[in-house]
Amino acid sequence: MTDSLTLREISDCLKGQILSGDPDALITGVSSIQEAGPSDICYYGSTKYAGFLASTNAMAVIVSRPVETSAECVLLVEDAYDAFRKVLHLFKPDRFSAFSGLHSSAVIHSSACIGENVRVGPSVVIDRDCIVGDNCSIGSGSVLGPGVILGSDCLIHPNVTLLDGTCAGNNVIVHSGTVAGSDGFGFVPDAKGEHKKIPQNGNVVIGNHVEIGANCTIDRAVTGSTKIGDHTKLDNLIQVAHNVSIGRGCFIAAQTGIAGSTAIGNGVVFGGQVGVGGHLVINDGAVIAAKSGVTKDVDTGITVSGNPARPHMENLRLGAAVSRLPKIIELVKELKTGKIEETGD
Amino acid sequence: MTDSLTLREISDCLKGQILSGDPDALITGVSSIQEAGPSDICYYGSTKYAGFLASTNAMAVIVSRPVETSAECVLLVEDAYDAFRKVLHLFKPDRFSAFSGLHSSAVIHSSACIGENVRVGPSVVIDRDCIVGDNCSIGSGSVLGPGVILGSDCLIHPNVTLLDGTCAGNNVIVHSGTVAGSDGFGFVPDAKGEHKKIPQNGNVVIGNHVEIGANCTIDRAVTGSTKIGDHTKLDNLIQVAHNVSIGRGCFIAAQTGIAGSTAIGNGVVFGGQVGVGGHLVINDGAVIAAKSGVTKDVDTGITVSGNPARPHMENLRLGAAVSRLPKIIELVKELKTGKIEETGD
Amino acid sequence: MTDSLTLREISDCLKGQILSGDPDALITGVSSIQEAGPSDICYYGSTKYAGFLASTNAMAVIVSRPVETSAECVLLVEDAYDAFRKVLHLFKPDRFSAFSGLHSSAVIHSSACIGENVRVGPSVVIDRDCIVGDNCSIGSGSVLGPGVILGSDCLIHPNVTLLDGTCAGNNVIVHSGTVAGSDGFGFVPDAKGEHKKIPQNGNVVIGNHVEIGANCTIDRAVTGSTKIGDHTKLDNLIQVAHNVSIGRGCFIAAQTGIAGSTAIGNGVVFGGQVGVGGHLVINDGAVIAAKSGVTKDVDTGITVSGNPARPHMENLRLGAAVSRLPKIIELVKELKTGKIEETGD
Repeated sequence: MTDSLTLREISDCLKGQILSGDPDALITGVSSIQEAGPSDICYYGSTKYAGFLASTNAMAVIVSRPVETSAECVLLVEDAYDAFRKVLHLFKPDRFSAFSGLHSSAVIHSSACIGENVRVGPSVVIDRDCIVGDNCSIGSGSVLGPGVILGSDCLIHPNVTLLDGTCAGNNVIVHSGTVAGSDGFGFVPDAKGEHKKIPQNGNVVIGNHVEIGANCTIDRAVTGSTKIGDHTKLDNLIQVAHNVSIGRGCFIAAQTGIAGSTAIGNGVVFGGQVGVGGHLVINDGAVIAAKSGVTKDVDTGITVSGNPARPHMENLRLGAAVSRLPKIIELVKELKTGKIEETGD
Repeated sequence: MTDSLTLREISDCLKGQILSGDPDALITGVSSIQEAGPSDICYYGSTKYAGFLASTNAMAVIVSRPVETSAECVLLVEDAYDAFRKVLHLFKPDRFSAFSGLHSSAVIHSSACIGENVRVGPSVVIDRDCIVGDNCSIGSGSVLGPGVILGSDCLIHPNVTLLDGTCAGNNVIVHSGTVAGSDGFGFVPDAKGEHKKIPQNGNVVIGNHVEIGANCTIDRAVTGSTKIGDHTKLDNLIQVAHNVSIGRGCFIAAQTGIAGSTAIGNGVVFGGQVGVGGHLVINDGAVIAAKSGVTKDVDTGITVSGNPARPHMENLRLGAAVSRLPKIIELVKELKTGKIEETGD
Repeated sequence: MTDSLTLREISDCLKGQILSGDPDALITGVSSIQEAGPSDICYYGSTKYAGFLASTNAMAVIVSRPVETSAECVLLVEDAYDAFRKVLHLFKPDRFSAFSGLHSSAVIHSSACIGENVRVGPSVVIDRDCIVGDNCSIGSGSVLGPGVILGSDCLIHPNVTLLDGTCAGNNVIVHSGTVAGSDGFGFVPDAKGEHKKIPQNGNVVIGNHVEIGANCTIDRAVTGSTKIGDHTKLDNLIQVAHNVSIGRGCFIAAQTGIAGSTAIGNGVVFGGQVGVGGHLVINDGAVIAAKSGVTKDVDTGITVSGNPARPHMENLRLGAAVSRLPKIIELVKELKTGKIEETGD
């Protein structure tokens, strides 16, 4: 963590141009345009926040085009949002646990293979035949079941549960409370209501550079693997059922659920609280709006919304039509003067 | 826990009036009107349960106005529901763990500052620079990351994860499985699908008298704090994204999700499974009906429902109109006899 | 786990009939029809997968009626899905933890009563007065609060939290991250926004042969018990509020939430992301489609869908009518030529 940097140092790091302000001005923190204090740097991205340009108390504002602002310093860059990301890195607080190395209270089976420079926090359990790659960190209270494999540079936060056979690539982040490898929901119903459990013999396979939020559930496959592709990012409280396959570079917002055996392509984006039925195909680049209920395959690059989900423009058109419905009903009544009967509900 | 109390003792405690029954009758438990046994006390609140007044096996019923009932004793109070709450306190079972004090299996960093009369259960991990106020209880398996601060009289149930920098006030209750301080869902997408993570430098700040249910996720802020105000109560499985600010005295029912940077005023009430978009303002006293999808700001004191959420009366009117739609379509067909074509779907 | 079995051995076990292929063919694994390799067995159930019959690389396919297929061996059985279940059992991988018996890092209170052949993993905490039946397995990091009772043959996966007083029958499976016995969401609101907590004095009672998925939350009752009946199966991330009663043999898909005091009969089936209001009755054999919002009682054997949920056929009819609405509006405009005004939205 940096305590302070001059505007010039920040500008150099961002390959930016100082439009106004003293290059030697000392910046001590990063904040939002509305909350920034007098030694903070912030960024201006969306016009939704244009009103704050004139009132911000920030010392410096990062922009992608020249602006008028109350901030003393203006720093022009190509991509203000990406520059903000870099500045956040410069001022990143030190979060590291005081419990470094392999903590004495962790239970690590003798058959587990632990790489170089690995951190295993207190109360962690690592079962037989696990492989943990170099530079991984396993947070306090996390459990790795038998045969779990992690590549290098993975960050497993506290109280994560990776069950037997779960495999993850390199640079994977898993947030607290998430469970990977729980049994899929599979039963053979019977007439007496005494459903028989279908063994879930498969596992979960997570690619490289995947990030999974807090309290998610990723079920193991019946046979084969439930898969999450490289660079895919999951928010919190997401359900991924058995044998789901998610491609590369997808974004999935919180509380979305994907039912069994559905195949999701690359670069698919899900809003929050989406539900996707089982055995569907969501093709590359599709966008699923928040709260949609997807009941059919979705074509490449299509945006869908609503429940049942339809092409977004169609759903908007139906929504607009419904808004006008009370008026239309009045009109129909007029047309049919006296002939309509009120319905009971 | 009390084993038994006389009706008079209970009446005195509630400042009630015995309308019928023996003041020396011995009450041994509290139950609902429909399940109460012959030595139980119950309460009658909603008229939905009026049918049970004549059939209840309870010895005593607490009421806010005189009633006819099969119960031998009737106790009149001003607020039956609040009186029920008090009686539940009188008969509260003893839930305390046998593992009192600082358990030997807990790992508490030497730099942590633990107050008087604190309970730390087995397998708890408390990292560097934590401050735990007097009379707190930290349940088994819970993890407090670096620099977590808890005020006094907090009850952290087992297997809770409070990540670095999370701060809570006094009299806070956090239920099992909840995660506070996980990273917000922030990335700079790029064309190759190799999204760059935006550091989440902020924290989570929880006020006084807040209760958070089980398996919730409260993400840390990008900069500054994700905030939950005094006296706000969250049910289970709720998602609070980064930089959300929730005011004082709000109620949020289970499985609701609030997207990033949304500001919620005081006294706002959410039904279950609500989704609220990002960067919105929900003003004081608003009520959001269950399963609503909020896409716009909500004014003070307004009730909204539906997806997209609208003022509740408007949403009801649209719903009623939709119910009548098949009939309206028939009518339009009649008006236009023979001229309508059936659509394919 | 079996490494390989001959087709005849499998056929004998399934009481099947070999329609084609060498009875001595060696099968080394189970897979899906589309992913099977040359020594795998798979099954053909839904016609949705008929296209794979001709292209599968499987050595053998299990069917309920004769088919043409690229697989060398065809095995005819009465119920292909149930036969698949049995074959999965034959090839079930060995998942057992290396930490058998009562692990030395587990903290088990002296008053707890632990049956024969019980496994208690590392970092488990078992509080006072617990009873754990024979042949139970308690996964690493799980916590059993005071007075928890488990019957025999229960499988509690890692990082489960069963709070004080929770009772489960025999053959119960609870997946990781699930919390049972958290406080119900009950408060007496007051005008100042300082809501008073209603003590939750009851518990959670789980029947026999119940399976509960990962990261679910089952709240304890205010008085009495929140109940889950025999043979009921819950998927992941499900919320069961206080005093809910669920009957026998129900199936509840992921992310469904059931509000307080609702009573659910036997054999009820819920799709995913369903919300059910409080104090309702869902009668035996009802089916609640995914994403429904149930606001009224549901009669025996009825299928409902939509939000608010209605009988499924009625909901479909309304959905179809809404799809036709833009066309209907055009028609009404024609009928009333020139007289309609466009609405603003």
